[in-house]
Amino acid sequence: MITLALDSSGKAAGVALLREEELIYEAYLNNGLTHSETLLPMVQRAFETTGTALPEIGLLAVGAGPGSFTGLRIGLALAKGLALPDAIPCAGVSSLEALARSIPLTDGAAVIAAADARRGEVYYAAFRRQGTTLVRLCPDTAGRPDPLAALLAEEEKTVFVVGDGAQVCYNRLKEAIPLEPVPDCWQLGRAAGVAFAGRALWLAGCAVPAAQLRPDYHRLSQAQRERMEKMKESENQ
Amino acid sequence: MITLALDSSGKAAGVALLREEELIYEAYLNNGLTHSETLLPMVQRAFETTGTALPEIGLLAVGAGPGSFTGLRIGLALAKGLALPDAIPCAGVSSLEALARSIPLTDGAAVIAAADARRGEVYYAAFRRQGTTLVRLCPDTAGRPDPLAALLAEEEKTVFVVGDGAQVCYNRLKEAIPLEPVPDCWQLGRAAGVAFAGRALWLAGCAVPAAQLRPDYHRLSQAQRERMEKMKESENQ
Repeated sequence: MITLALDSSGKAAGVALLREEELIYEAYLNNGLTHSETLLPMVQRAFETTGTALPEIGLLAVGAGPGSFTGLRIGLALAKGLALPDAIPCAGVSSLEALARSIPLTDGAAVIAAADARRGEVYYAAFRRQGTTLVRLCPDTAGRPDPLAALLAEEEKTVFVVGDGAQVCYNRLKEAIPLEPVPDCWQLGRAAGVAFAGRALWLAGCAVPAAQLRPDYHRLSQAQRERMEKMKESENQ
Repeated sequence: MITLALDSSGKAAGVALLREEELIYEAYLNNGLTHSETLLPMVQRAFETTGTALPEIGLLAVGAGPGSFTGLRIGLALAKGLALPDAIPCAGVSSLEALARSIPLTDGAAVIAAADARRGEVYYAAFRRQGTTLVRLCPDTAGRPDPLAALLAEEEKTVFVVGDGAQVCYNRLKEAIPLEPVPDCWQLGRAAGVAFAGRALWLAGCAVPAAQLRPDYHRLSQAQRERMEKMKESENQ
């Protein structure tokens, strides 16, 4: 079975194709262009390069957040558009799990995935590689990453932190954990991580029809926050 | 300055673009198709996806071996064809160094890069990440990787081995070194590694005109070996 993976939840856009567990194609773009213009052509080029066509796709995996609200909508809208006509099963994956799966870890090593949530906060989660599986150590969470200090206090191996929230995590946790940001060119992850996270969901029987794909914003948008603040103000008047 | 990197020295084909030190594009293809058909279209798609054109390229980096003899010729021929008209400076990089640079390492960690050389032998080299630099621990070598056992006997951190010779190295060295093959989807490397290795050569003043690019076979081809054996036989008669 072929898995098509899309990611536009962060600064870089990505597309990947798996044949069963084997990565046959991956593309990464971090050129400052808007995902709405680049992601669909990237899918077309993935098909051209590999000689694959949409009807061969058995699973469509997409980064569903947390991450950039606009980026998530672009990725999910494209996934739905591609999956609906042929009823391709979909897997909306945690963008943090995808980040964690997009770098190689030595067996037993932990990793923190962190996406920038602005105002000194991050979306974060931690994972550990155990043999061929990735074990989640905490749920995707929004806020300051301070609870990870206790969770990972006993680590002996260096803990990589990946994602555009890596620096925030490093600054707050470096005294408590043997922590290191991944070198720059891995910081934004790779679409292979989305593909493997999606395949893991599919193997667990958790793929869904396209109509059920939902973004996982993890917090209210700025517009919603402002609206609620205004409503509170008018209630108080 | 933009660096264009090509790689067809192994089973996977790869193309990458750097803007200074920043990875702006990377593509990876491991679909069993011949590099002679896929590599040039992959370069064209890299340009289309990023809105880049050949005259903007300031450095052309290419995996120059050791590796597949046919693959090396395809990559070097394409590099020369692209670089000659506009006299783009070229960097023929060690394919083993490129492999080592294509996975993230924690600071101080060593890595073995190993390409299959058939008959139980590999092309191998070892490196260590020190801060932002990659330090070479031994020259590219062809043969059984046994000398690495002494070289890396004192390692405390897990040593990753990357490349399609990883399993041969692991089988021969696992008792002597805390060794682990990288998980499958990183085994064949990424073109970013070629790009960073090429940029390092360029920064060291070691870029060359296209006409001076040479493959680094590291041993005679099967045809050459057979010819020499026949010559020896006829001398002995």
